[in-house]
Amino acid sequence: MEEVRNQQVIFKDYVNGFPKESDMILTTSATVPLQLPQGSNGVLLKNLYLSCDPYMRGRMTKTEGSYVASFTPGSPITGYGVAKVVESGHSSLKKGDLVWGFTGWQEYSIITAPETLFKIQHTDVPLSYYTGILGMPGMTAYYGFYEICAPKKGEYVFVSAASGAVGQLVGQFAKLTGCYVVGTAGTKEKVELLKTKFGFDEAFNYKEEPNLDASLKRYFPEGIDIYFENVGGKMLEAVLLNMRVNGRISVCGMISQYNLNQEEGVRNLSSIIMKRLLVKGFIVTDHYNLYPKYMEMVIPLIKEEKICYIEDIVEGLESAPKALVGIFSGKNVGKQVVVVARE
Amino acid sequence: MEEVRNQQVIFKDYVNGFPKESDMILTTSATVPLQLPQGSNGVLLKNLYLSCDPYMRGRMTKTEGSYVASFTPGSPITGYGVAKVVESGHSSLKKGDLVWGFTGWQEYSIITAPETLFKIQHTDVPLSYYTGILGMPGMTAYYGFYEICAPKKGEYVFVSAASGAVGQLVGQFAKLTGCYVVGTAGTKEKVELLKTKFGFDEAFNYKEEPNLDASLKRYFPEGIDIYFENVGGKMLEAVLLNMRVNGRISVCGMISQYNLNQEEGVRNLSSIIMKRLLVKGFIVTDHYNLYPKYMEMVIPLIKEEKICYIEDIVEGLESAPKALVGIFSGKNVGKQVVVVARE
Ligand SMILES: NC(=O)c1ccc[n+]([C@@H]2O[C@H](COP(=O)([O-])OP(=O)(O)OC[C@H]3O[C@@H](n4cnc5c(N)ncnc54)[C@H](OP(=O)(O)O)[C@@H]3O)[C@@H](O)[C@H]2O)c1
Ligand SMILES: NC(=O)c1ccc[n+]([C@@H]2O[C@H](COP(=O)([O-])OP(=O)(O)OC[C@H]3O[C@@H](n4cnc5c(N)ncnc54)[C@H](OP(=O)(O)O)[C@@H]3O)[C@@H](O)[C@H]2O)c1
Repeated sequence: MEEVRNQQVIFKDYVNGFPKESDMILTTSATVPLQLPQGSNGVLLKNLYLSCDPYMRGRMTKTEGSYVASFTPGSPITGYGVAKVVESGHSSLKKGDLVWGFTGWQEYSIITAPETLFKIQHTDVPLSYYTGILGMPGMTAYYGFYEICAPKKGEYVFVSAASGAVGQLVGQFAKLTGCYVVGTAGTKEKVELLKTKFGFDEAFNYKEEPNLDASLKRYFPEGIDIYFENVGGKMLEAVLLNMRVNGRISVCGMISQYNLNQEEGVRNLSSIIMKRLLVKGFIVTDHYNLYPKYMEMVIPLIKEEKICYIEDIVEGLESAPKALVGIFSGKNVGKQVVVVARE
Repeated sequence: MEEVRNQQVIFKDYVNGFPKESDMILTTSATVPLQLPQGSNGVLLKNLYLSCDPYMRGRMTKTEGSYVASFTPGSPITGYGVAKVVESGHSSLKKGDLVWGFTGWQEYSIITAPETLFKIQHTDVPLSYYTGILGMPGMTAYYGFYEICAPKKGEYVFVSAASGAVGQLVGQFAKLTGCYVVGTAGTKEKVELLKTKFGFDEAFNYKEEPNLDASLKRYFPEGIDIYFENVGGKMLEAVLLNMRVNGRISVCGMISQYNLNQEEGVRNLSSIIMKRLLVKGFIVTDHYNLYPKYMEMVIPLIKEEKICYIEDIVEGLESAPKALVGIFSGKNVGKQVVVVARE
């Protein structure tokens, strides 16, 4: 039985506050037989691209009853990725197939429940897109914007963490719908990208604004119809003051709160009554039934270059811990991807 | 032209913090001709019952762009009431008709836009009910519970300010739907009422609970499907920790915040994501088109004694300021009504 090296990124122990590179360790000593155990109906994957996603912070805390399990100290990090099937014991997949879905931060993974994997149908787009626009973040932008916000032409849309994996898509979807869109992000470079690359009508760096309420009033003199919430905390507090009657808030994420030991209190919730707001949270995995419908929409948009997607790609498993940690301080410009192998 | 005395409760000036009786003055010097001005297509009303409602606190603050205008210093308080038509210049109403709707805190009022008034059809129920179960608070409970929460048999429902004008109805509607219902209120007497009179499964006095999260865990070991939000602040913060996946929060009111100069911050909003919550605010006046449908439902329930309604009735305009102020410290037991005249 052929055994090969299987580099892994191991989760060391539960994390308090901001995660650090040293909360993960690269091991190069493990090996893996390039073959499934006898009788297995799983699949053996060669991992190509791994995705760094904010929800992974929650998995670094010991929690019970969360919608996603904590990482296991001493075991590899797990997360979304793109992979190639090396061997399959499952009727729906065969050797050579490309898939995206849950895998491990290692060179090779055995997936015992391959029905959770999506078989990749379109290979005439960058494969890494299946960690972003064609994967979980894409579905998140699609569901959170179209299904929750029910946007109409001419409405005023605000997006936080706007240059990220999800935000850059929400902004472009909003423009395609005929909305007026403003985004916020944490660096000058990102703000430029929002305006020049993704077509946001306006953008600003929230870190340079002393008064977020005043900033929003400047960009939205008529108020905000739709807020795509990625950050929470003080931004939400300011947005609530600027929502219009019958506004909608798609509560996708609150990344500004993930590393705090106690969440910040948010004021101005009485706007929910006065403005008759809809505030709706969601977890994208509940809505994967809509994935085919989303693909039908987005694949032509990509091919016709009506939408673009920016990735922040680092090479090698050894770069993964730094990349993951980086998203919590905004180091990533666009979707954060780690290349393990290109094929 | 016959002139009669027209006692009035005058709004003195904008209020800071908790309202006081002295923020209103009873004047007995005004008179009114018992006749409409020539050519008027308004109506002259004799006021019978006046309603004390929490939203009136908002009108005591000078605000712009709110969904309801501020009171005018030096003019009578205005609010919901039940009245009899003395003279009508409007085709839809005639002398002797009974109506409910917006009127003044005085013995007689001229209403220049009588199309805002509801003509009372059922007079075989207490007329004062049109300030409560058959008026604005009734519609609020109906819309906020049925339309927003879409309750299902067997679901776990929590109601705050549960013995009040709205809350007592929400609890009873929930029981009629086959839900498990727990209410909270601020005195022992009210807690007893909830259990013995309104049929709540459990009830507790929030003022005696050192840890609201723990209280809710005690009453809802399985969590809360539906929260009917009347109070906001710390209660909402604790509820968020105890919501179940796909829970719904009908954001009706946040009375604990109305007298503060700055709203309290509310933590635990990330539950909105994790639990995929729907949080929906509403203003009942947007939904008065459903009033006939509500009446069809509720009138038989009253007649068949399947629902009951408790009012806290005080006599005379001179008692009105104290009654209104009292609802902000929970003095009222049930719907707070002021009798101006009985016919
Ligand atoms: N509900 C779901 O199913 C679901 C699915 C996917 C993602 N999400 C959520 O969606 C949000 C965006 O995810 P993503 O994948 O698109 O990530 P991302 O935007 O690519 O990366 C995270 C970005 O968040 C910003 N950020 C970090 N800390 C912040 C803070 N304290 N305050 C404000 N901004 C901060 C940084 O950009 P700046 O330079 O702009 O600060 C950073 O680049 C996250 O909250 C995530 O949890 C939810
Ligand atoms: N959205 C709408 O269209 C709409 C329409 C009608 C009413 N509302 C809202 O619905 C809620 C209930 O109104 P209602 O007419 O039924 O009033 P109510 O319950 O009859 O009277 C107010 C009650 O609120 C409670 N309360 C007062 N201050 C409080 C505090 N700091 N913390 C907790 N509870 C407090 C008191 O009862 P305890 O003894 O229990 O403390 C008091 O009796 C209010 O928030 C109101 O603004 C909204």
